[in-house]
Amino acid sequence: MADINRQILIDQIPAGKLGIEHFRMTEAAMPTPGEGELLVRTRYISLDAANRAWMLGPTYRSALSAGQLMAGGALAEVLKSRAPGFAPGDLVFADTGWQEYAVLPARHQTKVRAVEPMSHLLSVYGVAGLTAYFGFLECGKPKPGDTVVVSAAAGSVGIIVGQIAAIKGCRTVGIAGGAAKCALLTKELGFNDAVDYKAGDLAGALRAACPDGIDVYFDNVGGDILEACLFNMKNHGRIACCGAVSQYDGAAPRGIRGIPGLIVTKRLNLQGFLVMDFYEQREKAIAKLKAWVQSGQLKVHEDIIAGFENLPKALVGLLAGENIGKRMVKVY
Amino acid sequence: MADINRQILIDQIPAGKLGIEHFRMTEAAMPTPGEGELLVRTRYISLDAANRAWMLGPTYRSALSAGQLMAGGALAEVLKSRAPGFAPGDLVFADTGWQEYAVLPARHQTKVRAVEPMSHLLSVYGVAGLTAYFGFLECGKPKPGDTVVVSAAAGSVGIIVGQIAAIKGCRTVGIAGGAAKCALLTKELGFNDAVDYKAGDLAGALRAACPDGIDVYFDNVGGDILEACLFNMKNHGRIACCGAVSQYDGAAPRGIRGIPGLIVTKRLNLQGFLVMDFYEQREKAIAKLKAWVQSGQLKVHEDIIAGFENLPKALVGLLAGENIGKRMVKVY
Repeated sequence: MADINRQILIDQIPAGKLGIEHFRMTEAAMPTPGEGELLVRTRYISLDAANRAWMLGPTYRSALSAGQLMAGGALAEVLKSRAPGFAPGDLVFADTGWQEYAVLPARHQTKVRAVEPMSHLLSVYGVAGLTAYFGFLECGKPKPGDTVVVSAAAGSVGIIVGQIAAIKGCRTVGIAGGAAKCALLTKELGFNDAVDYKAGDLAGALRAACPDGIDVYFDNVGGDILEACLFNMKNHGRIACCGAVSQYDGAAPRGIRGIPGLIVTKRLNLQGFLVMDFYEQREKAIAKLKAWVQSGQLKVHEDIIAGFENLPKALVGLLAGENIGKRMVKVY
Repeated sequence: MADINRQILIDQIPAGKLGIEHFRMTEAAMPTPGEGELLVRTRYISLDAANRAWMLGPTYRSALSAGQLMAGGALAEVLKSRAPGFAPGDLVFADTGWQEYAVLPARHQTKVRAVEPMSHLLSVYGVAGLTAYFGFLECGKPKPGDTVVVSAAAGSVGIIVGQIAAIKGCRTVGIAGGAAKCALLTKELGFNDAVDYKAGDLAGALRAACPDGIDVYFDNVGGDILEACLFNMKNHGRIACCGAVSQYDGAAPRGIRGIPGLIVTKRLNLQGFLVMDFYEQREKAIAKLKAWVQSGQLKVHEDIIAGFENLPKALVGLLAGENIGKRMVKVY
């Protein structure tokens, strides 16, 4: 074990698009756990659109600011425990931030049972999988035969939502950027159709893919795509509001037209959610996800980048839509 | 009975604000009921913001167009019946349009039990009261102690929503235009506070009236007021989307900012509804409303204008916010 702890700080909050120049690397001394604390080493750090949203202002957490350690969730391994119930080798999922080592208060941690490969704890059995599971089933309330549309459909959450929709007997349409992603969705992952939002005429393509309208729209992106879906919803349709990645990275904030007019006349339901609200039910969900993975009904796509120093580049690329499936950085 | 039937037609669909010049009066022959039909005389014609919305395009009904009889709901009395189960003197609520007499297919009609005064069948025991009842209770899901905000709070629906909220033990804040309406709400109708949206600084006034945020917002107006409420919602708040009167009368269509970002981070629920979806449950609701009226907990405000020829002026004035409570025209 080295006796230094590499950290990546936010050098500057971006005014427009996030770039790698908004981060800087620093070296701190190895932290020492006190009574009731754990020293952990980050193994895999999760990259999420939310990382960027946290820079915009307070959300469900306080806003990030310049000079601060970049925040982020990670799968981490206990190196030293000064708390009962934890031993070296145990795994935890924690907001360690972007650093190689962290000291965490043990009372806020829950041990994560190891699986093979370990990276699945950040994708299908982690926040991405649980977000897809609870958001789609609890907020989307799908019924067999429903037409389900999911945006950012090749992303960490969308790629799971679409497959759960297929498992539940829905007709599934993914919206993604580029022909390669669209082909993956329809040829390998069981989506019935895919719409390439970069190909132009989104509204027309969406109408063609959903001639009878949309029953459930799982929204990861907000903006133009949310608006296009809103205008194509069926009466009594449901929109699960998961995120708004189109709005996070320096886009001029824009309003959504058709609200509340279309909500009223079509009697739509829009439900926002955060996965943490479903924490108590996570074991049941993970069991379901495991069964689907083991039966081959749910395919897991991960985009693993090696090297702690690549975190800034990995986040910038995620916001540009580089990844297919869950992106993470393997630190160790 | 005269042998002519005065009718008001849409002369022109307005491009901007609706004016009385967009209507014209005409005289038609008295219609004659065929087999299975009823001849009715309109007694009270209902004025609703929806009348204007129907001119904008198809909604839950096809769009109105120039040359057509102006559409509208009315309380009407059967003069001649050629259908079993109906007799002269029976009352029905029907989309007669703006005319003195109409022929209606009996199979689409339901008799309305007379009450005293008859006008209550268009206000508290009619669409306005049922819209308030179902929209607030089913979509708003209020709990005692909740902070409830209602817009167009002195209007036909809002004035009932606020009083039901008070009955249900909520802290009730009305948004209305002008000091007189606001004083009525707080001094006579049991609202805890009122915000005059014409007084400027709506956001500040709303924060002052709801320092801990809003649990339930009953939205009759859309636009700026919806946006201001959205930014003041508490986590897990509910928005009942009833209408968007600010957007109907020639306003430049505008998008709502903060969507979906605030929906996600605050885990909000937006539910659109139409009263017709609750048709099966109406008797129970009317019984409740009657009990509240009889006990004095629910005060009924009506704004009754005499004279068929005043319909255009009455609608234009409604869109300008002239009325307190339910506006209707007494035809006969």
